[in-house]
Amino acid sequence: MYIKPTIVAMDFEGVLIPEIWIAVAERTRIEKLRLTTRDISDYDALMKGRLEILKSNGLLLKDIQDTIARIDPLEGALEFLAWVRKETQAVILTDSFYEFVQPFLPKFGYPTIFCNSLKIDGTGAITGYRLRQKDGKKKAVSGFSQMGFRVIAMGDSYNDTTMLKEADLGILFRPSKKVVKDFPEFDVFFEYDGLKEHIGKCLRSAK
Amino acid sequence: MYIKPTIVAMDFEGVLIPEIWIAVAERTRIEKLRLTTRDISDYDALMKGRLEILKSNGLLLKDIQDTIARIDPLEGALEFLAWVRKETQAVILTDSFYEFVQPFLPKFGYPTIFCNSLKIDGTGAITGYRLRQKDGKKKAVSGFSQMGFRVIAMGDSYNDTTMLKEADLGILFRPSKKVVKDFPEFDVFFEYDGLKEHIGKCLRSAK
Repeated sequence: MYIKPTIVAMDFEGVLIPEIWIAVAERTRIEKLRLTTRDISDYDALMKGRLEILKSNGLLLKDIQDTIARIDPLEGALEFLAWVRKETQAVILTDSFYEFVQPFLPKFGYPTIFCNSLKIDGTGAITGYRLRQKDGKKKAVSGFSQMGFRVIAMGDSYNDTTMLKEADLGILFRPSKKVVKDFPEFDVFFEYDGLKEHIGKCLRSAK
Repeated sequence: MYIKPTIVAMDFEGVLIPEIWIAVAERTRIEKLRLTTRDISDYDALMKGRLEILKSNGLLLKDIQDTIARIDPLEGALEFLAWVRKETQAVILTDSFYEFVQPFLPKFGYPTIFCNSLKIDGTGAITGYRLRQKDGKKKAVSGFSQMGFRVIAMGDSYNDTTMLKEADLGILFRPSKKVVKDFPEFDVFFEYDGLKEHIGKCLRSAK
């Protein structure tokens, strides 16, 4: 029996760690940083607004990183990712930025993670951002497929659904009711234990 | 200044661990397992010969894995890979098999590694192998480029040169004199320290 090598491609925020901007909003007590794509659907407008808020509050990259460093991964997330990495290959695909996720990486044992990047000026202020490519999660999944892998993709929200569709198996983890309703084709899990069992079965079955 | 996110794609055997088949030949004292593509240029013929030898010696996958588990990584390799993973993203690209590299993975802290696979029968005997795809190393590098990454590729031998060419920066690590002569276009390093310095400089320079 030949089982195709498998990559588990997973979102970061909402799957392994809390939503970064919401946690930053709580810790800096800047309520306007709570806005997400649910409130402002244009991602570029949303990000520019966030960077304006940071600027007007005199917050540098270092300040945000210090805040992020105090955010804990979701309960059970370290064990879950460690399990996936023992069983098969894991790659984290996120729309967040290398500069933001950096404080989490030692906690997770330096997993492979594909992010976007921030633009930083000489004073350490965040002046902009750069997408590695448009629809990067979906294109990464497509790229792994073209490399001969079976891909299991996991995410929690709308911005994950294109990669879930692109994958051989798409899984929603802790999605909102609305996402579940809009995408009934994906398996849904709310706890890591059930998720592990599901992925484990998939890994042991040929395709 | 925008620095494109970088993936360091590196070969495994000869770069981080010794050549597996040679180490297995030494430990099993089966001299014929020492043959490499330098002796038999047809990889498929070479692999089929190796599997025949294992079969005629009654060696199962488990025996080979036990042998492999006693092979140490190259001196300094654990520290080198840990350094790369702290600095940027690292992916190991090898023509070897998941079933063979498995004993090394805990030692290296479960890095992301793209391999081929063996076919195993019900008795645990190795009955064949399956390439994930033809020229998998080069195609992985090409895939990462298409995902918007700058790719630094490192390898020691002829089977690495197509991925080194495909990458933004190709580096030969501990190559034979013949490889250096045939591929004068690549930087050459023999020690991890010089290699780290070179990669570090590259990571800090925009492209």
